[in-house]
Amino acid sequence: MRTLQVDLGERSYPIYIGGGLLAKAGSYFEDHQLSKKSPVLIVTDDHVAPLYLKQVEESLENSGYRTVSKVVKAGEKSKSLGVFEAVMTTAIEGGLDRRSVVVALGGGVVGDLAGFVAASYMRGVTFVQMPTTILAHDSSVGGKVAVNHHLAKNMIGAFHQPEMVLYDVETLQSLPEREVRAGLAEMVKHGLIWDAEFADWCRDHTSKLLALDADTLVYGLTKGCSIKAQVVSDDERELGLRAILNLGHTLGHALEAIGGYGEFLHGEAISIGMAAAALIAVNRGADRSLYEETVALLSGFGLPTVMPKHLDEEQIIGAMMHDKKFKEQKLVFILPLSIGKVEIVSDVTVEEVRRAIRDLKEEEQHV
Amino acid sequence: MRTLQVDLGERSYPIYIGGGLLAKAGSYFEDHQLSKKSPVLIVTDDHVAPLYLKQVEESLENSGYRTVSKVVKAGEKSKSLGVFEAVMTTAIEGGLDRRSVVVALGGGVVGDLAGFVAASYMRGVTFVQMPTTILAHDSSVGGKVAVNHHLAKNMIGAFHQPEMVLYDVETLQSLPEREVRAGLAEMVKHGLIWDAEFADWCRDHTSKLLALDADTLVYGLTKGCSIKAQVVSDDERELGLRAILNLGHTLGHALEAIGGYGEFLHGEAISIGMAAAALIAVNRGADRSLYEETVALLSGFGLPTVMPKHLDEEQIIGAMMHDKKFKEQKLVFILPLSIGKVEIVSDVTVEEVRRAIRDLKEEEQHV
Repeated sequence: MRTLQVDLGERSYPIYIGGGLLAKAGSYFEDHQLSKKSPVLIVTDDHVAPLYLKQVEESLENSGYRTVSKVVKAGEKSKSLGVFEAVMTTAIEGGLDRRSVVVALGGGVVGDLAGFVAASYMRGVTFVQMPTTILAHDSSVGGKVAVNHHLAKNMIGAFHQPEMVLYDVETLQSLPEREVRAGLAEMVKHGLIWDAEFADWCRDHTSKLLALDADTLVYGLTKGCSIKAQVVSDDERELGLRAILNLGHTLGHALEAIGGYGEFLHGEAISIGMAAAALIAVNRGADRSLYEETVALLSGFGLPTVMPKHLDEEQIIGAMMHDKKFKEQKLVFILPLSIGKVEIVSDVTVEEVRRAIRDLKEEEQHV
Repeated sequence: MRTLQVDLGERSYPIYIGGGLLAKAGSYFEDHQLSKKSPVLIVTDDHVAPLYLKQVEESLENSGYRTVSKVVKAGEKSKSLGVFEAVMTTAIEGGLDRRSVVVALGGGVVGDLAGFVAASYMRGVTFVQMPTTILAHDSSVGGKVAVNHHLAKNMIGAFHQPEMVLYDVETLQSLPEREVRAGLAEMVKHGLIWDAEFADWCRDHTSKLLALDADTLVYGLTKGCSIKAQVVSDDERELGLRAILNLGHTLGHALEAIGGYGEFLHGEAISIGMAAAALIAVNRGADRSLYEETVALLSGFGLPTVMPKHLDEEQIIGAMMHDKKFKEQKLVFILPLSIGKVEIVSDVTVEEVRRAIRDLKEEEQHV
C-alpha cells in the first residue's frame, strides 16, 4: 500500500493506493474521525454496485456508520442535472446533515456526480472517493467535480477536495478491457505533459499494465496521481499551469459531446485529441517524430489516434466553441514541445484545428 | 453613499449603499477591473426587469461591456433546479467564459439563484450583486447562495462571495408595501440578535423606515449589513456563531415550505418564527416581557406574529425535520436571552416546538 499526500494547505488529503482497501473502509473513516452520528451516502452505479457496494456498506456499518446508497445507471448520461437532483432526493430522505459524508464508489462519472453533490448539499459536506477504474486515478486528484449541461460537458460544477481517496486496485481486475485501455490514456498523458521518463516507463510496461499486474499498476497509478498532484498543488483553481492537464481535452471533449457521450470513452476521445495536438505542433514546425512517437505510444495501448471519417468537421468545431477552454474568443490549446513537455498556446486558429481534423481522417490506425 | 467592507481575507468585498448607483454600474465594473472581453450575464426577474434592466445594461455597455440578460419569473419558485438550468443555458449560449461576471439584479431569490449560477458555472465565476429589495440587504452579505429542492429550501448551494455589492436604495421606492414590511423583518432581526440599541432605533424609526425615507434607510441598511458582516467575518462557513443569524428561521423555513413558498413572504415567515422563539424562551423560564417586546416590535412593522389556525401542526413539524438546522438528530434553535442577545440551543424538544405552535394559534394579531 502506498500513500500519496496531495498538498493543498488546509485542504490537503491523502490518497491510499493498494489492494483490499474497500474492506477496510470503516477503519479509514474512523482514522479520519468522520462523524458516526450522521448518515453516510454512498453513490455508485449499476455496474459497480453488484461487485463492491455490499462490501463497503458492511465495512462502514461494522464500524458503526449508518449508510444510505444511491445506485445510478453506469455511463456519462448520469452526469446530468436530473440524476444530480435524484441523488439529492436520496440524501434528503436519508436524513444527511452537515457532518455527513458523501462517498463516490465508482469511476470518473460517479466521482464527478457524487463530488458535485458533496460540494453543494447544504452548501458542502465531506467527500470521500473510492475509485474503481484506472481513469479515476486522474479525476481523484484535483477536486474538480461537475455535471454536464446538454450543451457542453462539465459546465456545472465546483472545486471540492475530498477528505481522502481510497484506491483499491483489486477493483480494477473487474474492468472490461476497453476501459482498461481508455483509463491508461490519462496515465500516458501524465507522462506526455510532465515526465519523459515516466512516458518511457509506460511504453516499456505497456503489456504489464494491460495485463493489470498489481505492482506495476500501483506504481503507475501512484506516479500518475503524483504528477497530477504536483500540477494541481501549484494551481488549485486552474488559473495557469493546471491547464496543461488538458492536453488532448479541447478536441476530446468535443468528440465526446458530438458522440452524445456514447461513441467514445473519455480516454479514447483524448487519445485522438493528443494525436491531434501533436499534429498541430508538427504543422507549426515541430519535428514529425514528435507526432509519430506520440501515436506509437498511444497505439501500443490499443488507443485510437485517427479521426473517424463519419464525424462532421463543422459539428466538431461547433462543439469546441462551447468548451471552457475557449477563453475570451481565443482557442487555448495545449501543444507538445517534446515527449514530457508541453506549452499553453493561446493563438491556435480554427483553421489549424480544421487541418488537423482533416489530416487525421486520412491517417491509418496502427494496432 | 456609504461603503461597508465585508472582511473575509482574500475574499473581502465592499458593499456600496446609496442612491443612483445602478446608473453608474459600468464605472464600478471598471474600478474593479472586471474583464471587458468576456460577456456579462445579468439575471433578473419580470418585476425588476421593466424597471431597471435597461439602465444597468446601458451603463455597462457604455463602459464597453457586452451583456446578455436572463429574466426569470418573480418569486421563490424560480429558485428551482429547472430555472437554474435555464439560466445556465443562457450563459452557455451567450458565450460566457471563466472571466465573465454574473450579476444578480433583484431581491433575495434572484441573488440566491444567480449566485449559485456564478458559483457553479465553469466551477465558479465572478459574482456581483445589485439588490433591489430591503430583504436583500441580508442575503447580500455572507456569500450563501442556493436553490431549493422540492423537499426543502436552500438545500443545494454554495458559499460564493461577491466581488462587490451595488445597493441602490432608489430601487426600494418601487417596492410593494407588503415587501417593504417583510424586508424590514431581517433588519429588525439583526437588532434582536446582536444590538439592543439598534433594535431600539428600529422601533423608534418604524414609520420613517416604512415611509422609505432615504437617509433612514441608508443608515438602517448599513447597520443591518454591518451586523451581519461582523457575524459572518467571524464564521464564514457557518460552523458556529453564524447560526445566530437563523433566529426565527427554523420554523420560518418550515412555514414557507408547507405554504409552497407562496403563502408567506420570507420576512413574514421568520417574523412568526421569531415570535415562536421568544415564546419557547419564555416557556423555558425567560421573563414574558421578552416575548411581548419582540411581538410589539414586529407588529409595529405590520409583521405577523401569530400562527395561522389553518396550518397543520404535523406538517410544520415534518417540514422542520428536513431543515439543515436539524443536526445529528437534534433540533438546533436560536433562542433570545434578551433584546439584542441570543443563544444557540441544541436540546429543544419537538414537544416544546409543538407547544409554541399551539400557543401561537391562540394569540391575537396586534396591528
